[in-house]
Amino acid sequence: MSGKEEIQSLEQLLSKLDVKDLESVNKILYGTGCSKLEIPNIQVEDFEIQSYKFSCPREQTRLPRITRVGVFQNKTPLETWAPIQEQRQALHNLAEKAIETAAKANVNIFCFQEAWTMPFAFCTREKVPWCEYAEDAEKGPTTRFLQNLAVKNNMVIISPILERDEDHNDVLWNTAVVIDNHGYYLGKHRKNHIPRVGDFNESTYYMEGNTGHPVFETEFGKIAINICYGRHHPLNWLMFGINGAEIVFNPSATTGELSEPLWGIEARNAAIANSYFTCAINRVGTEIFQNEFSSGNGKPAHKDFGHFYGASYIAAPNGSRTPGLSRINNGLLICEMDLNLCRQTKDFWGLQMTQRLDLYAKSLTVAVDPDFKPQVIKRI
Amino acid sequence: MSGKEEIQSLEQLLSKLDVKDLESVNKILYGTGCSKLEIPNIQVEDFEIQSYKFSCPREQTRLPRITRVGVFQNKTPLETWAPIQEQRQALHNLAEKAIETAAKANVNIFCFQEAWTMPFAFCTREKVPWCEYAEDAEKGPTTRFLQNLAVKNNMVIISPILERDEDHNDVLWNTAVVIDNHGYYLGKHRKNHIPRVGDFNESTYYMEGNTGHPVFETEFGKIAINICYGRHHPLNWLMFGINGAEIVFNPSATTGELSEPLWGIEARNAAIANSYFTCAINRVGTEIFQNEFSSGNGKPAHKDFGHFYGASYIAAPNGSRTPGLSRINNGLLICEMDLNLCRQTKDFWGLQMTQRLDLYAKSLTVAVDPDFKPQVIKRI
Repeated sequence: MSGKEEIQSLEQLLSKLDVKDLESVNKILYGTGCSKLEIPNIQVEDFEIQSYKFSCPREQTRLPRITRVGVFQNKTPLETWAPIQEQRQALHNLAEKAIETAAKANVNIFCFQEAWTMPFAFCTREKVPWCEYAEDAEKGPTTRFLQNLAVKNNMVIISPILERDEDHNDVLWNTAVVIDNHGYYLGKHRKNHIPRVGDFNESTYYMEGNTGHPVFETEFGKIAINICYGRHHPLNWLMFGINGAEIVFNPSATTGELSEPLWGIEARNAAIANSYFTCAINRVGTEIFQNEFSSGNGKPAHKDFGHFYGASYIAAPNGSRTPGLSRINNGLLICEMDLNLCRQTKDFWGLQMTQRLDLYAKSLTVAVDPDFKPQVIKRI
Repeated sequence: MSGKEEIQSLEQLLSKLDVKDLESVNKILYGTGCSKLEIPNIQVEDFEIQSYKFSCPREQTRLPRITRVGVFQNKTPLETWAPIQEQRQALHNLAEKAIETAAKANVNIFCFQEAWTMPFAFCTREKVPWCEYAEDAEKGPTTRFLQNLAVKNNMVIISPILERDEDHNDVLWNTAVVIDNHGYYLGKHRKNHIPRVGDFNESTYYMEGNTGHPVFETEFGKIAINICYGRHHPLNWLMFGINGAEIVFNPSATTGELSEPLWGIEARNAAIANSYFTCAINRVGTEIFQNEFSSGNGKPAHKDFGHFYGASYIAAPNGSRTPGLSRINNGLLICEMDLNLCRQTKDFWGLQMTQRLDLYAKSLTVAVDPDFKPQVIKRI
């Protein structure tokens, strides 16, 4: 544990400004397209709730396509060394509360944080017992559990888990499972880019995904999932856009010292560059492990992963965004959006039309040649 | 003219927070890698000066490669309808002061805003007299003028101008000229992506650039230029990175209502995603034209382009950034950086290693096929 006092949120600090100044700051930092959304007064003890909506002009030839998204950030409820079955059950219990609460607020699409059924144990480099958290994507206990909740609540659920692929020699993947609102397993996406950064030793557990950049066409919109470290890769975001995504979820697990100044930048830039909505979801809290581990930074071995700073948020194609959830507490962020805003933004900014994909298809093909020479101009 | 009072800067508003809160806000918003740089006390009336430096650990096998960059944002000094020769001369006079001032602070590389030798007249869609501002990139009066200043001050100068290409039928381009510190014309880059957004009618003047993504190898680092609207295109930023850029300048002209919430996001995301420094330079002030024009937004014809909000800033590969210059005044932003931070960041984050360029070269090649079908998963 870092021992220092974590601040509640950026927004809580900014709220100390006077009203007029705060309005100007918010306009520059967050744009003007987002406002509070009224939802039923729901009493829950386990997490905070924030709700917003993005504005969108009416069109003449299309009806609005209103969708409500819910994203959930949470601590692991038990000690990381509690038995696996108990930890998973505690997480399932919390998840059920979150989904039922989201349902009361008419959420249509719900997404958890990365590897939500387990502690983020990849810092340890231990295989035991963590590999035992892996589940079959289609028939594992978590998918079965969520299928019931999905059909009961008429909700699409995105469930990022550690996947065990029994059909291919028991290998592991970092995978997001998509369950549709009728409870059917719609498919899965495997994390395309795997970090080798600090405590993120994930490349010792699983490889780069082999599922491409699928977009899942649901009753509530065309959605995709860019898992965690993939948010650093603009090409990953781009391909989801090319495949037609309207909302891209970014379930993550990232810590303050490593990435906090980047957090508000990357998913939001992706929303702007690709004219779709993005939902950035981070873990929250500090996870302590039983055995000490080193972090490849010259410092002594220790038992915690640093502070997961939460601050989950949603960004719109026009560059507006919601405030962030808390940096320290469990939270459910609900956001209503009209998916028509995607095409409207494409028409307005013209980024797809002016994108010159053909140029870059050729440039990248040249660049990956081992004999590639960069285009450098210098005085001879 | 909008008539409303423009705020000084985001930073000026945030400075009303108490010291401890401001420190926390800055850490989240701007990272911790940037601090004030002491420079000689220089008295100038025409523009404000701000100076910063980015920190960078020492290496064992490479000496630090310290470079000082200066970027300049300015209003057009005369009325837009003043004679062309007078306007250009007034801008040259201001430029000379800026460069001489930067030289006193030991700046090595200097960059102007987009199309700095003229009003940003593309809003008017008039060809007369604006096309007359165009100059030959290599032998035009502005390049000749700057060559003298470059050699006198031992400074690389990037000069974004409207280019007249006499060798190819007199066509126009939006071009950045690079002059090395010995006064030699090093080469040019033509803007790759041309906007069709609101008053940015640039596609009626010039086409998408045909100079690829050149990186200019200078004595002070490998530099590139992503002109204005190209900052919305992650692939454009990417190719400069692939070609080895260490600093990418983004000379721009963009207005508040259109893009301000995006401004702090895009160039900074590019710095993070490509592990190089980026310098985002915006015009400042409101330019009024003699003849009214409409903006394609259903509103009455008018004579101004809206407020260019300045706020030029520099971002580092590790995600830290400088504060922004003023939203309302001319400004010179000076920043010292160790270019070794680029490779250090590549080693730390591993974004190039994990980039899977081969995957995307193939994916984009498939995507540009007119018969391309997106990867969509739906229940049958």
